[in-house]
Amino acid sequence: MTGRLLRPRLGVVGGLGPLATADFYRKTIDAVPAENDADHISMAILSVPQIPDRSGAIREGSDKPLPWLIEAIDMLNSLDVEIIAIACNTAHHWYDALSAASRAEIIHIADAAIGELHRRYEGNRAAVMATRGTLRSGFYQKRLREAGFDCRNPIGPAFQHAVDDAILQVKLGELRQARLACAAAFELCRQDGSEAAILACTELPIAAEEVVPEGMLVIDASLALALTCIQRLRDPDRRRNIAM
Amino acid sequence: MTGRLLRPRLGVVGGLGPLATADFYRKTIDAVPAENDADHISMAILSVPQIPDRSGAIREGSDKPLPWLIEAIDMLNSLDVEIIAIACNTAHHWYDALSAASRAEIIHIADAAIGELHRRYEGNRAAVMATRGTLRSGFYQKRLREAGFDCRNPIGPAFQHAVDDAILQVKLGELRQARLACAAAFELCRQDGSEAAILACTELPIAAEEVVPEGMLVIDASLALALTCIQRLRDPDRRRNIAM
Repeated sequence: MTGRLLRPRLGVVGGLGPLATADFYRKTIDAVPAENDADHISMAILSVPQIPDRSGAIREGSDKPLPWLIEAIDMLNSLDVEIIAIACNTAHHWYDALSAASRAEIIHIADAAIGELHRRYEGNRAAVMATRGTLRSGFYQKRLREAGFDCRNPIGPAFQHAVDDAILQVKLGELRQARLACAAAFELCRQDGSEAAILACTELPIAAEEVVPEGMLVIDASLALALTCIQRLRDPDRRRNIAM
Repeated sequence: MTGRLLRPRLGVVGGLGPLATADFYRKTIDAVPAENDADHISMAILSVPQIPDRSGAIREGSDKPLPWLIEAIDMLNSLDVEIIAIACNTAHHWYDALSAASRAEIIHIADAAIGELHRRYEGNRAAVMATRGTLRSGFYQKRLREAGFDCRNPIGPAFQHAVDDAILQVKLGELRQARLACAAAFELCRQDGSEAAILACTELPIAAEEVVPEGMLVIDASLALALTCIQRLRDPDRRRNIAM
């Protein structure tokens, strides 16, 4: 339904997992310099953690989550949102199908993250910290190569094991364990000579808090997506403000 | 629209302000002992900070926010939610009109908070820390009296000034200032002989972090509402599990 008075401008497909979406929501709030409530961007957040496991589906070559994701996109379009963010990197495996099903433009999280990397990073070697499904899908590696970056993923089995563990521990709400696993992954990145890493799973920013090694540039894909969405809504004329 | 696969079970009217809703969302997540994403409750959160100032309207005798609130309730009902939470105490001034307009039951935040106070507090004197609009509306005082509590609000002008400031500073994102103001309000409560206080504005739990004096029982109305909603959805037969 379309409201007469209220219109949620940003639609969010979330709950994948819920803590990651709470983190994304918080980032959209912090991104707006507000004097009062009304300065903030109106949003509709669907937190629907029942959507089947994305990473597992990609690895099995299945599209099982797709009808659920399309339904979430439909619900947000029914509320007449202007743009949509999907607060889950792995779900972007189905970006093309979801975009085709959506009236509102879906902002791609990897475009947002790599745009941010491009602006802030002089080097050319970057690690992608992501689920195995996101890596198998390859949309980060493809965009990194197109933007001129050297990307070897996974760096090694110990690295991916640490990343997997950090993601799992956030989903379990075990934040101390998550931080330890994330710190181990950063250390392996550094040993491999990567001076930059992309937190390409929305659980990871929660794990990365306080454990980023000095001298390493860490791009938070959730934050990049939040900033890109807010910028787009505050300045709709700059549609392609994602430096690539 | 009603989904075939997805159904957000809990609808949230939020954004009043956004940080308070992010806090409420986080509390609904923490309230569920989850082994994986799918154990969490599905939700639809409308974060619509453009709804006109509730406290000011009550004090002016105006119903200006009501059509906006009804529209938010309509949107959540259009998504077929089972129950609705309004993550703003002051907006409960219009609870009866909103309930009448909603198919889904709206869980009253003051019922949740006072139920929690009743379970945890042996004494009979409690302070209500709320906006001036919430106090003018009187729904907390009425429920406290009905539950046998002695409630004098505001305790004094300095107390209400500190509460107002704590709320304002959270809305401005100035969390250090907010904590100082909240600590001052708690101290005035204690000087007045109140051993219990209800944080009856959803901004206040953010300000109260780390500054609750020893020996004071503080009931967080946001947390009580989150717990009541989760309990209701996990155990729908216990409809009236709010001890009063």
